[in-house]
Amino acid sequence: MSQNPECVFCKIAAGVIPAAIVHQDATAVAFLDIHPLAPGHLLIVPRDHITSMSDLPAETSAALARLFPRLGEAARVAGGAEGYNILLNNGTVAGQFVEHLHFHVIPRRGDDGLGFRWVSGSYAEGEAERIRAAVTAALKR
Amino acid sequence: MSQNPECVFCKIAAGVIPAAIVHQDATAVAFLDIHPLAPGHLLIVPRDHITSMSDLPAETSAALARLFPRLGEAARVAGGAEGYNILLNNGTVAGQFVEHLHFHVIPRRGDDGLGFRWVSGSYAEGEAERIRAAVTAALKR
Repeated sequence: MSQNPECVFCKIAAGVIPAAIVHQDATAVAFLDIHPLAPGHLLIVPRDHITSMSDLPAETSAALARLFPRLGEAARVAGGAEGYNILLNNGTVAGQFVEHLHFHVIPRRGDDGLGFRWVSGSYAEGEAERIRAAVTAALKR
Repeated sequence: MSQNPECVFCKIAAGVIPAAIVHQDATAVAFLDIHPLAPGHLLIVPRDHITSMSDLPAETSAALARLFPRLGEAARVAGGAEGYNILLNNGTVAGQFVEHLHFHVIPRRGDDGLGFRWVSGSYAEGEAERIRAAVTAALKR
């Protein structure tokens, strides 16, 4: 286990600073986001100080996600919500502001005003095959 | 394994309709979203026809997430991106439009214009503790 003494999520995981913790186990800690997008907004983080998904062991990713169904439903119920989003922002460009990897669980209601409709596009002729080949090539590296 | 013969993602997983598949194993299939938010936008789905996270076995959630680090990085590289989001929309209110659970992997670049800044709030005095207790109670049900 490696921690970063300057990291707020490491401090929460270590119990050094308080948080509204709802789950903890050997690998993961889940607690209320103090800047909630909705009541019940949770963060699920690895105990290890891992900044990026590219440094996340597959088994740690699996251990975090094993919690999704149960914590998602609990956040939904506690937040009086109808559904929820699970969101990970990997990299500043994707909206990651704390450099300790975290999955958001965001309870959603029809009247929450959060919206979230990104505008999708479509691939030009042949582009999807080119991108598919590029993904496959990247997987082989 | 249970499939829904009317479901487009079940058909893709079964090879009945074509898709730009980048990964498949006993539990999961990953392929290019045909309405991409960015080049390399992937969907990761369970082979089983599961509509909601509340029906997703923890081990299946883990099996899907085991793919996140590797597929995320491959989508990022193939899409010429700097980061990515992983997003699950659980329920119509959360933006789920295909009734077969799917994680999005969305490569992100600084100039992609997707934005995505939800406005966060804060808990009133005592509210976080009340919500924490509600989440904990829901976990015990």
